[in-house]
Order: sequence, then C-alpha cells, then structure tokens
Amino acid sequence: MNIVIFGAGAIGSLFGALLSKNNNVSLIGRKPHVNAIKKSGLKIRGITKLDVAIHATCSVNKVNSSPDFLILTVKSYDTDNAIKQAGNIIGENTTVLSLQNGLDNVDSIKKYLEPEKIIAGVTTYGALFSEPGEIRHTGMGTTVIGELNGKKTERIDNIVRLFNQAGIKTTASPDITKDIWGKAVVNSCINPLTTFFQCKNGYLLDNPILGQLVEKICQESTYIANAQGLDFSYEDVIKNTKNVIRNTSENYSSMFQSYRMGKKIEIDSINGKLVEVGTKKGVDVSLNEMLVYLIKGRK
Amino acid sequence: MNIVIFGAGAIGSLFGALLSKNNNVSLIGRKPHVNAIKKSGLKIRGITKLDVAIHATCSVNKVNSSPDFLILTVKSYDTDNAIKQAGNIIGENTTVLSLQNGLDNVDSIKKYLEPEKIIAGVTTYGALFSEPGEIRHTGMGTTVIGELNGKKTERIDNIVRLFNQAGIKTTASPDITKDIWGKAVVNSCINPLTTFFQCKNGYLLDNPILGQLVEKICQESTYIANAQGLDFSYEDVIKNTKNVIRNTSENYSSMFQSYRMGKKIEIDSINGKLVEVGTKKGVDVSLNEMLVYLIKGRK
Repeated sequence: MNIVIFGAGAIGSLFGALLSKNNNVSLIGRKPHVNAIKKSGLKIRGITKLDVAIHATCSVNKVNSSPDFLILTVKSYDTDNAIKQAGNIIGENTTVLSLQNGLDNVDSIKKYLEPEKIIAGVTTYGALFSEPGEIRHTGMGTTVIGELNGKKTERIDNIVRLFNQAGIKTTASPDITKDIWGKAVVNSCINPLTTFFQCKNGYLLDNPILGQLVEKICQESTYIANAQGLDFSYEDVIKNTKNVIRNTSENYSSMFQSYRMGKKIEIDSINGKLVEVGTKKGVDVSLNEMLVYLIKGRK
Repeated sequence: MNIVIFGAGAIGSLFGALLSKNNNVSLIGRKPHVNAIKKSGLKIRGITKLDVAIHATCSVNKVNSSPDFLILTVKSYDTDNAIKQAGNIIGENTTVLSLQNGLDNVDSIKKYLEPEKIIAGVTTYGALFSEPGEIRHTGMGTTVIGELNGKKTERIDNIVRLFNQAGIKTTASPDITKDIWGKAVVNSCINPLTTFFQCKNGYLLDNPILGQLVEKICQESTYIANAQGLDFSYEDVIKNTKNVIRNTSENYSSMFQSYRMGKKIEIDSINGKLVEVGTKKGVDVSLNEMLVYLIKGRK
C-alpha cells in the first residue's frame, strides 16, 4: 500500500517505521528530523529496535499523490493546516485516517473533505521524540480504527490487517467516536497534571493527594462526555485512567513532552473542547476550565 | 506598654521594630533570626529604614510575663502550638491579638483562652524576610483591629492609638470577622496562583488568561463567604482583589515566600477552610479544592 504519514512526531515516526517494512511509506515532518532521517535513516529505540531508510520530506508536494491512506498524526492545533496542505495529494481513492489526540480533529477535517473519506483511530502506544532522527518506543498499547458511522467496511479491515502485519496490535472499532472521547477523558486528567507537576505519569498515583484530584477531574470529564451522549460510567473511567497511569508510570505524557520542548500545548482540543461542550450542555466544567487557565497561564 | 510579638516573621518583625520605638517589645522567633538580632539588632529596609535594638528570644519563657498585648503573627498552622506555649505568660490583663492570615486562627485560640481575651486584626502591609536580622518593608497598607463581638472598647482604642503612634496606619473595625474573611477571599486567589506560577503578584493581571482565572476563583470564594453569612458582593471582591494585585504588583505573596524558603504552606487555613465551610453549606468548592490539591501535590 502507498501510505503518507503527515506528522512525523513520536507516534507518526514509530508507526511509519513499522509500516515501512511492508508498505511504501512517506513521512512528512519538520526540517531537523527530516534532515536527520535523510542523512542516517530513522532509528527506533526502546521497546522496538529498528533502523529504517524511509522517505521523509517537509513538503506535501514531495510525496506521491493519491496514496491509499493518508495518516494524520499532527497535533490537533495543526490539523486544519495539514489537511489544507494535503488537499493536493488526496485522490479519489485516498482514505484519511486521523490518529490524533483531541476531540476536534474529525470536525476540522470535515471542513475540507467529505465524511466518507475520513476514518479515525486511537492508539495507546507510548513513544518519545529523543532527538532528530531518533524515536524511543516507550510503551506497548493497543490501537483501534473505525468508520465514523460505526460500520464494518473493507477499508477498515485492510488497514487493521496492515497495522497488525507491521506489528502494531490493532482492532476494528464499532464506535470510534466513543473511543476518541474515552481517550480524551483520560488525557484531560493525565496530560495537564503531568505538565503542571513536570512529572512522569506514575507520580499522579504515587502522591495520594493527586490521586484524589485525578478522580475529581475524571468525574467532571465523564459527566461532560455523558451530557454529549457518550455512555461512560464514572467508575470505569476512574479504573481505566488509573490503569493507564500505572501502565505508563515511567512515561512522560505527550502534553508534558510538548511543554518540555517549548512547543505549543494541545490543551484546546482536550480540556478546552470539554469546557466548550460542557458549557453548551449546562454541566459543570470548573476543573477543566481551571486546567486550561493554569496551563495557558504558565510563563 | 509591654508587648510580646509571637512570630518574628516579616510582618511580626516589621511591626515589632516600629512598636519598639514607644513600647517595651519582645520578639519570639526562630534561632537564626533571633541570633542575628541579638548580635547586630533588627534592620528594616525598603520603604521603612530603621535599625533597632530589640529584645528577641526563641523561648516564651524568656519574656516578661503578663504583657499588655500578646500579638500573634505566627503562620496559622503554628497557632495552636504558639498559644499553648504562651499559656504561661498570658496574664489576667493580657489581651491576645491575632494578626494573622487565615480563617481558623481565632477558633484555634478559643480552644485555650476565653473569647474575652481575644481580639483580631488584619493588615495589608507588605514585608519580606530578606535574611536573618533583616526585613524588607515592601508595601504600605492599612491595618484594622477589632473586638470579636464588634463592640467599641477601650483596649481597641488603646492598641489602635499605639499602632498609629508607631507609624502603622490603623483603624478600629466594627466587623473584624468580615475583614478576616475579606482578606482570606483575596488571598484564596492571589496566594496559590502566585505560588504556582512562582511569580510576583502583578503577573496575575499582566496575563489576561490568569486575569479570568482570578475572577473565577474570587467568585467561588465570595459565594462560600456569602453562604457563611458574610455580606460581600462579587463585584466588590473582584475590584478589591485587582486593586490589591495592582498595589502589590512587585511583591511576592506570603505563600510564595514560604514556598521559596522550603517552608510549610498556609493553604489549609485559607483555601482549605473555604472548602470545609463551602462543603458544609452545600456550595460549589471545586476551584478552591483543586488549588488545595495542586499546591499540596507539588513535588
């Protein structure tokens, strides 16, 4: 298959490297990373050890047009821009897979493409950008991919097979919107708190006071998701969030990674979107709102 | 007058130095500060320039017993301990003046003394502990002192006169409980936020996002105070808080000062007490609770 991965961050590069074994993959990323890959290939370290020569470029015009799959792995605040640029290469048979964090990516993509061209995915793989040309695979996880309307289709089967062949444990999801919200609710808690305390995920449960705060935030975010019509129980969300924290205790959240690298932080499409939805639905958004303020208020 | 000041922090030392011009003052403080004062006197710098030889000691047993006024300026988490120790020297005619931050000091003192012996005060003077033996007077302010029952009494007139003679601008308050709450509501916002962002007070208004958060916290704290029967309007509290921030823009809040010095933080008796009261009264305490968690969760 011809695959273009737009967003050569940690997850984009890791999946790109794995998929490149059996597919024709192009990575679109930023200059230092692209230059390092051109010079010495893409190195994956940590759980996966892999050195691949992979096509990498900064410009969407330098990749073959009409790929079978365009996988979006940019940060949510770059989705609009990425999909506008990618317009030139999205062909009649190209499917766009949003494999991103945040609640607003599919809506952003829909502004430019018919919904039929879009599928979405959620992954709990952990990866870290070590340095240009090198990614650290820090956590095994699962990936789910599905049609926006929940239907079982051939293209979902195809990409699920492709991912599994590449060693990325993946299943088809009958309700990808719920999966996206499920991850966002977990992230609404872990991401801002780890950014604040500049800590590994595990610290949130090492400290009993923070453990209580984790529960409070999960509760508010769950109620917002419920108000939006998503059927989560607060108990399950708490259990799931604590499991994620335990399973990724030595990892740094994507938000804290961005913060450390001095990059823009993906808070608007997680906590910010929860505030927007909750406000519209008339449910309490105090904690999420305060997290947005506190993260954005940082010097 | 014979005055003992228990708690030779920034405010205790500043007021001690000023009052020592016309009164017999003893300061009770910690060893490094007391030793420096014994060796080279107490230095006030900044707005006030003053060098005084003043009696300083670490032990309550080394001061004359039965002073006219025992002024408590310890942090609120030390009130219990201080008043227990001071038991030995509090005489029949001694009045105890709590000149502290926080909402639980008077209740703590009442556990050991009859309410008639207690008066309370609130000051907006700004001071900073520069180094042992030296205090920086950073902000002019006003001080109010009153009986717990709101009555006009001779001892209030006396201490108000004493303070004014010492150059501490002071008036008698007809409702000191409201004044204490008024300051706590302002502090509930300024103290934890400046501690978080490790910033001068002024930063809270330099940053428009934090300005919005200031308003939200003021609102919640005002509603808690209202539920407790204290008649504040949200608009006045906002205006007052913003004025305090502007007037003390170059200052560091007492909470951030404690944090910087690696000392215990006075959050329980400000935001913690607001959470306790609000929970009892059934009003929303989300933001104050989160501030308590976030401050206590710090590494």
